[in-house]
Amino acid sequence: MASATALRNNCRKIICIGRNYADHIKELNSARPKQPFFFLKPPSSILPPNSGPVLRPRGVNLHYEVELGLVMGKTIRDFDAADEKGAIDAIESYIIAIDLTARNVQEEAKKKGLPWSIAKGFDTFCPISNIIPRSAIPDPHNAKIWLNVNNESRQNDSTELMLFRIPRQLQDISRVMTLEKGDIVLTGTPKGVGTVVEGDVMTCGLSVGGKEIDEARFEVK
Amino acid sequence: MASATALRNNCRKIICIGRNYADHIKELNSARPKQPFFFLKPPSSILPPNSGPVLRPRGVNLHYEVELGLVMGKTIRDFDAADEKGAIDAIESYIIAIDLTARNVQEEAKKKGLPWSIAKGFDTFCPISNIIPRSAIPDPHNAKIWLNVNNESRQNDSTELMLFRIPRQLQDISRVMTLEKGDIVLTGTPKGVGTVVEGDVMTCGLSVGGKEIDEARFEVK
Ligand SMILES: [Mg+2]
Ligand SMILES: [Mg+2]
Ligand SMILES: [Mg+2]
Repeated sequence: MASATALRNNCRKIICIGRNYADHIKELNSARPKQPFFFLKPPSSILPPNSGPVLRPRGVNLHYEVELGLVMGKTIRDFDAADEKGAIDAIESYIIAIDLTARNVQEEAKKKGLPWSIAKGFDTFCPISNIIPRSAIPDPHNAKIWLNVNNESRQNDSTELMLFRIPRQLQDISRVMTLEKGDIVLTGTPKGVGTVVEGDVMTCGLSVGGKEIDEARFEVK
Repeated sequence: MASATALRNNCRKIICIGRNYADHIKELNSARPKQPFFFLKPPSSILPPNSGPVLRPRGVNLHYEVELGLVMGKTIRDFDAADEKGAIDAIESYIIAIDLTARNVQEEAKKKGLPWSIAKGFDTFCPISNIIPRSAIPDPHNAKIWLNVNNESRQNDSTELMLFRIPRQLQDISRVMTLEKGDIVLTGTPKGVGTVVEGDVMTCGLSVGGKEIDEARFEVK
């Protein structure tokens, strides 16, 4: 199993599912998608644990979004969502990730019909935990992901609330772009997103059946 | 100098500048940007020469956009646009690329404020030429790029028409995301974009001072 730093150095794309938890769609006043949609973050945005702070660009309303991340273990193309076992087999391991977003930049882009790549793609905008072995999460649709800011709970929901489950995500992504070993899929964020500012400390983690599996800590500079 | 296939296998991000030629902005009825904006295509979309046809997804209005591509030779961050020599030094080599676009998917995304990643990111949506050594293009702002469909000229303009020149592009990108060795920057397309359908053959090329430097050919399936 590779380290988070090896993942940072070898990952070739990060695909993020948008609007995949109903309550998060409500809190951003967004439309509920009829099918999964997704966007890219660059590998240069990955911040492994213990490798420095999150850098907030000047003038940016920086929003956290905690997400379950899949690290792909094989090449898949035109995947069939009915193949639930195949979906799990295609995953090498998991991570907890924060899909950091320059919310004001994103809102402006949405209004103008412009791409999201800048709003989502700054350096350090994808903090990740250590690698979580696949065996530690028997069912990726039955885990709790959570995020605290300065020890206050902000996000804490089960992955069972995903609107589009993982096999469907892999189907829809791989009909557009081939997924390759080392690619990361971020599966969407539950409700509770919000702003962090300089000096804030984000802690995020994942638990299964009440048992804490992994946790990571990031300071905002 | 790496081959186009090695580039395909090692590239970690493709950053594309949007709306960088005035006449192309007019033909799409777009607003002229006050600063360069950009988006990502995934490395999985790269199609080296002689490696198969461009695959048009069903129901897609497939548009070609010929562009000068920069292959980065070093890591740059917070680059200063005033450093024109530094910009050229940071480029390892050039390619001619076609920024293929699912135009109907993109128009829909623009209307809904959604990301462009799907419209721009299908497999084979980034055909590239062989690698062009830096020495073959003494001034990247003084080259002709052209694209023919079935031997009819569709695009043919000088890179001197770029609204934002390369040092400025590298500045604006690298203030957001670190550019790394092997990353590709597509510098925007001149006027003349349009649709291709099954069976069409796209030829694209680059010339300097009337001398043909390289050429590539792609069939649409
Ligand atoms: Mg997200
Ligand atoms: Mg985008
Ligand atoms: Mg383009």
